Formats: sequence, structure tokens, C-alpha cells
Amino acid sequence: MSEGQSGVHARGHLESIFRAKSVAVVGASANPGKTGYTILNNIVEAGYEGRLYPINPRGGTILGHKAYTSFSEIGDQVDMAVFVVPGALVPGLLLEAKEAGVKGAVVISGGFGEVGNTDLERALVSNAKSCGIRLVGPNCQGINYTGNRLCATWPLVTEKGPVAVISQSGTVGAALASWAEDEGLGVSGIVSLGNKSDVSELELLEFFGHDPDTKAIAMYLERVKSGPEFLKIAKRVAPNKALVALKGGRTAHGRRAAESHTRSIAGKYEVFEAVCRDLGIKAARDVEELYDFAKAGALLPKPRGKKLMIITSSGGSGILATDTVTDCGLEMATVTPEIKRELGSILPDYCVISNPLDLTGDATAERYSAAAAVLAKHGAADIYLFVFGDPIPGVLEAVKTTSERTGCPVASIYIGGGKVQIPEVKSLHRAGLAVYPTPERAVKAIGSVC
Amino acid sequence: MSEGQSGVHARGHLESIFRAKSVAVVGASANPGKTGYTILNNIVEAGYEGRLYPINPRGGTILGHKAYTSFSEIGDQVDMAVFVVPGALVPGLLLEAKEAGVKGAVVISGGFGEVGNTDLERALVSNAKSCGIRLVGPNCQGINYTGNRLCATWPLVTEKGPVAVISQSGTVGAALASWAEDEGLGVSGIVSLGNKSDVSELELLEFFGHDPDTKAIAMYLERVKSGPEFLKIAKRVAPNKALVALKGGRTAHGRRAAESHTRSIAGKYEVFEAVCRDLGIKAARDVEELYDFAKAGALLPKPRGKKLMIITSSGGSGILATDTVTDCGLEMATVTPEIKRELGSILPDYCVISNPLDLTGDATAERYSAAAAVLAKHGAADIYLFVFGDPIPGVLEAVKTTSERTGCPVASIYIGGGKVQIPEVKSLHRAGLAVYPTPERAVKAIGSVC
Repeated sequence: MSEGQSGVHARGHLESIFRAKSVAVVGASANPGKTGYTILNNIVEAGYEGRLYPINPRGGTILGHKAYTSFSEIGDQVDMAVFVVPGALVPGLLLEAKEAGVKGAVVISGGFGEVGNTDLERALVSNAKSCGIRLVGPNCQGINYTGNRLCATWPLVTEKGPVAVISQSGTVGAALASWAEDEGLGVSGIVSLGNKSDVSELELLEFFGHDPDTKAIAMYLERVKSGPEFLKIAKRVAPNKALVALKGGRTAHGRRAAESHTRSIAGKYEVFEAVCRDLGIKAARDVEELYDFAKAGALLPKPRGKKLMIITSSGGSGILATDTVTDCGLEMATVTPEIKRELGSILPDYCVISNPLDLTGDATAERYSAAAAVLAKHGAADIYLFVFGDPIPGVLEAVKTTSERTGCPVASIYIGGGKVQIPEVKSLHRAGLAVYPTPERAVKAIGSVC
Repeated sequence: MSEGQSGVHARGHLESIFRAKSVAVVGASANPGKTGYTILNNIVEAGYEGRLYPINPRGGTILGHKAYTSFSEIGDQVDMAVFVVPGALVPGLLLEAKEAGVKGAVVISGGFGEVGNTDLERALVSNAKSCGIRLVGPNCQGINYTGNRLCATWPLVTEKGPVAVISQSGTVGAALASWAEDEGLGVSGIVSLGNKSDVSELELLEFFGHDPDTKAIAMYLERVKSGPEFLKIAKRVAPNKALVALKGGRTAHGRRAAESHTRSIAGKYEVFEAVCRDLGIKAARDVEELYDFAKAGALLPKPRGKKLMIITSSGGSGILATDTVTDCGLEMATVTPEIKRELGSILPDYCVISNPLDLTGDATAERYSAAAAVLAKHGAADIYLFVFGDPIPGVLEAVKTTSERTGCPVASIYIGGGKVQIPEVKSLHRAGLAVYPTPERAVKAIGSVC
């Protein structure tokens, strides 16, 4: 299909994939070792509320759902079909899918261009086009759209959140989604591009660019389908959504590896980086940065300036955060003599009143709140970073209030709290407040929105 | 005490702290909000098998243990005492502790030099010296020695492993210990230095340098107590243990923060870095590197050369690992035409035979093993990196066999497997095999042992 088709037309078809009211799983299996089991099971476990039609030539019942032997047996409108059968069967099955009304397909099946079967891939695309079906894949790890509780991928991820993930690597996408699930950050959607022989990052950028649940879009790409088209769409989307991209094949060796992986020419990294800078896409250097920057883009408003104030219960973590400030082009906010006096009058005398402001190991949520209120009153900083060396009851309110009172981005670090801190981290994320696991990652992420 | 005392004499006293056969918790509390509860509870939960004596002026029973009103009431030899009472009481209590035979103390209590009470700290040190008691702290987060199931700190960490942590920040130490617990890597010991008014990194480096359970020592330091002494001890220890250090106060801002935290002059980072290079101490740049490099130092033997071979089930992760190879001064191993032919004859034709060697998403443990055997036979690489995009049954054996067959360091990456991969990661660590969560962290960690 031509790049020009991406845009409004494609969006309708992508709607029928992500917001499908009925889904067929072609190749659904009762055998837990098979991908056809994993996919059906994850759709069920995620609580999909639409109509679900497993298709398996043997019929019967799979995971409590009646299995159909073919599309024609269903006798109902099917919006979307996930294919987990051998690749050679998919082009033919698309014709049957069309009869059931299918508008969008997710082809997890492999055996196409990635193994040299370019003819089969051409047949797939040609049939899809003639049937008016848009397809994700083939040779991909599926899609997840939490707003529709539709987890047609693995691992099982159900936490709804503000980050959309578009990934040319199923594994990299799964990694981001897993972290977002574990931390209570959540995702709006995940798409594994696979061979991207039809739907690519172009239409998906457009789709998530209009998706009300998405605040940031994280992309892992090895090549961009069409540079000019990507530029055009990214320019439209960038004012409304935070965009973060990691490009595989940054170095000469990596680039050769990327070309083997995608069997096509990878773009030059320098060009990619320049384009990103131009468009306001934040270029991440590694998988953790991709995740951290997307979180920052989703949850931290752009600050007025670069002055960071660190409020900590852990001296060491405050120091390490401070070390990273210089690396990231941020500045340390100044604690003026006036602010010092005022803080001195409300804080225990063993607190270290400076930046970092060390409230020490017995710091309470009230102490954080009171200190932040003084700093806020004086407009001391453009950005706040709260470090919690141990879980402290009630800090969510302190962070929230500071964020509302100052209008500044407020990020937090939870570190050293072991299992006790996990529910706290989740609570903050669910309240829309960004949390990082180390001082260095927090400050770098803050730097990414400045 | 003078620096010269560190060494063999100190070791005996540190033995009585870490390998204590009887422990008193002075300030043990039945109130779960108190540190005196947390400490006693964690010692009990970790399964300490020595004699445990809670001391609380009210007596009674705490967590199922009879509480004593004083040392004298115990009427038994006590090797070590943990203090969680107000700081002002500790110097006096040391005299009573001596009567019970106490040789080592861990003073968690604060209120000393860190809040300006230098007199109290002097009294503490002077009493300790006159009683022949060596002390860790004051104002610290305690110690953990898994070989003695003695978790006199928080959070609760019980997994025994090859990494010792010496930290001038309780939080940074706790972070490393928590990660090591979560991943099944485990720790041999953790020491929070606090004000290090008696025992410092010097004696601890010596102690863990002789500890048979310790293979790597991770240090977070803001200042070194005595440069020349540190040099002398590190030189002795470095041939037998991997040493990794993170210094807080690397930048001008961070250094000022470190000086506020420790209330003393921080050393110049450049000097620290040069000394590390000289001694073979690996300098980490952030908390994650400190952890990753310590793991590498403990579990990866030093490779013969710098040629890395990447074997992956995830194309994207292989590419990202490759990108990092150049950054870390490593080299990509060459897959010669002969090796290619041989691999081609045993692998499915859709595998990408190159470096990275992409076994693709349906890779089995047998495929990893067979491929690694061919590469090993030809001595193709100095280091192997296995990437597992999804948990694959039986890979532990493949990694282990490759490690034994080649004598080369073999690291693994588990990424994108969600909750399913957690037990796999633990199994590998417990078998002494290093696992990393991202391609970039793995390759950087490999670079740290080259």
C-alpha cells in the first residue's frame, strides 16, 4: 500500500483492530505450550468484554469458549482476527475473514519475508488489500489495547496507563509493557510491528496521536518506513503527545545486525538523531531510557526552566542525584538565606538545609510537605525531585500537593525499600506521579522533558 | 583509633560482629512502627540460629523472645550488640555491654556527629576503645551477614550470595541488597557505615577480602577514611576479590552535597578514579552499574580477550547489545565461513547466521546448546552472551555447559518475559550464572571485567 493511505482512512481500520467488538483467534489451541493457547488465554485473562471466537479445525471448547471450525461457522460480524496458524495458510484465510466482516488482522504467524518467503508475503499483502483488511505483522508478537481489555500478545499486561508502545522488536515492546505493569504505570497500547508489511509506525503514530488515553508514545525502530511521511505525521502528533524513540543499529556493527534482522537498509543514526531533535522527539540511548523518558513525557509537564530542587530522606541518594544534574544540563536551584531561615524555623535542627535538602532518615510526609510549601512560596525551583529512602506513609499527598501548588513537574525516587515500596510506587503511578528506581535514572528522565 | 589497627586484629572483632553466636538488640520494641521492632523482627525472620537477647527496660516478651531489662540480667556471654536506643544512652551502655562480653557493636542510633554532637561521638568512640569493643556506625542502617543468617538491618534480605556491600549510604546499600534478593543473586554481607567513627571501609575491605563466601565487594563511598591505608588494603584484596566502587560527589555540586552529608572534606573524583584504575577497582558511574559490575565481578571469570559472541532469540535485543559493544571497547567475534557452514547444517534455515546469531523466536535450549558447541569448538569467541526474549525451558543447562566447555565467561539476558522469567533468572543466579535485564546493561557489565 502507498504511504499516502496512512492517515484518516487507516485510522478507521486500526479502530477495528484496537477497539474491536468481536475478535477471532485463528489457530486457538487448548495446548498450553502453543502460542495459540497463550493468545486466547491472555485475551480471556485480561477480561476482554467483546465477543470472542476461537477458531480451530477440531472445534470443541477451548478455555471455556466454543471453538469454531471456520469463519463461516461463526455466523456473526467479526471485527478483527488474530492469526496464529502456519504462515502459508494466512493469505487464503483472509478471504474467509472478509466474508465474516473482518476489517483488521494481527498476523503473529511467521514464515514470510523474514525467512526469505517474499512471495508469500506479497500474496498476504495483496489479499489483505483486495479484501480491504489492514494488517499488523506478519511475524509479530501481537497487540494489546488496555482500553478494550484486549491483550492479544504476551506477556499478559492489563494495567491501563498513559504510554503507548510501538516496537519493531516484540521483546523490547514486551519489556516496556512488563515494567509498566510491574510499576503500576500501565500502557494504553502495545504494538509489535513484525515485518510491518502493511501497518507500520506511520499509521500507528497517527492512531495513538489521536488516542485520548495516550500521553506518550515510545517507539523502538530499526528502520523508518518512509522518512518524509514519518516527518509529516510526527510533526502533527508532537504538539499533543510526548514522543520518545530508540533506534536499533546506532553503531556500524549494530547497523549491520539491524540490516540482517529486517533484511533491508537501515538509516544512518546521525540522520535519525537530527530528525528527532528537529521534531521534538526525544532520542533514547537504551531500553531503560526509552521507558524512563516515555514515563517522564507522559507524567511530567514541561518545566518553565532548568532549576531542580532535591528533597531527600537519604543523603547518599541526594548526592548521586546531584552528580547527575550536571551531566544532564540541569541546574541546582538556589536555597537563598531567606529560604534557609524559613526552613530552619520549621525543620528539626539536624536536617541539612541546602540543595539537596536532606530531611534525614526519620523524615515524615508532613516534613516533606512543609519544606516543599516554603520552597514553593518562594518559587525556588522549576522542578522538584523527592527521594524516599524508605517507604513513608502518606507521601502521595505530599507529592501531589507540591505538584498542584507549584505547577512544576514533581518526580520521585523510591530506593532501598525492598518489597515494602512496591505498592507505594504503584499508588504514585496510578495517581499520575512519576517514580524512578535510582537517582541517576530520575534525573536523566527529568532532563529529557526540559 | 589509629589506621594501623585495621588488619588482623580488627578482623577478630569483626568476626564477633558478623559471625556472632549471641546477639543483643538494645532497644528491641514490640511496636511495629519502631526501628527496634524492625531489627528484631528481621533477625528472627532471617532465621538467626544463635542466641538472641532483646533488651527493653520493660522486660516481657517481644516477638516470642523473652526481653531482658539489662545486659546484666542476661547472665550469658553476648558476642555482639545492636543499639537502637537514643544516641545519648549508647556510650554508657557500652560499659554494661563489656561486662556481658560484647566484642562488637552495631550502633544504628543517631544523634552524634551528624547532628553536630561531636562530643557525644567522641565519648562513644572513647568508651568503645576502653572497653575493647569495635563498632559499626553510629547513625547507620545496620549490618547483614547471610552466612550467619544475621539480618540486623532493613529491608529483610536472606538470599545468600557472592556479593558483599559496604555502603556509606544506608539506602544505597539497601537498594543493592534488595535487587540481589529479588534476582536470587544474594549477598554475603551488607554493612551500612553510617558516621564510620570506628570501623570503616578499611577494616571491612580486609574482612570481606578474607571472607570465603565473598567473590565481589561493592562499595558506595563519599570519602575514603585514609587514602594510603585504603591503597594498601585494596592492593592486598584485589587479586582475590573483584572490587567495584561508586563515589558520591563526582561533580562539583555533588561534592559540596557530599561534604554537607558527611560533614568532612570529600576527595577529588579524578584522584579516586586514578587510584581505582591503578588498583584494578572498577569505578561505577551510577547505582545500577555498581550492582551490575559487582555481579559481573562475582560471576564472570576474566576473559582471555575482548571478542564477544551474541546468541539471541530476539533480533532487536541482539542489535541493541551489538550497539553497546562498540561503546564498551569490546569487539564482535567473527563468524568465519567455515563456522557459518557448520551452523547452517544444524540450524533451521530461517536463523540469521552471523554475530549476533539470531536463533529467532522459536529457539529451544537445544538450539542454543548446539550452536554454542560449534562456536566453542572453533574457539570463535572470548565471551558469550545469551539473550532470552522469552523464558525457554532448559536453558540453564545450555548456559552452564557453554561456560564449562569454553572456559569463557557466559552472561545472559532475560528480557520481555514478564513474571514468567523471574524464577528462571533466580535459577541462573543460584547456579552462579550472571543474568542482566537489558542488552545495554549486560554488555556494559561484560566490559567491566575485560
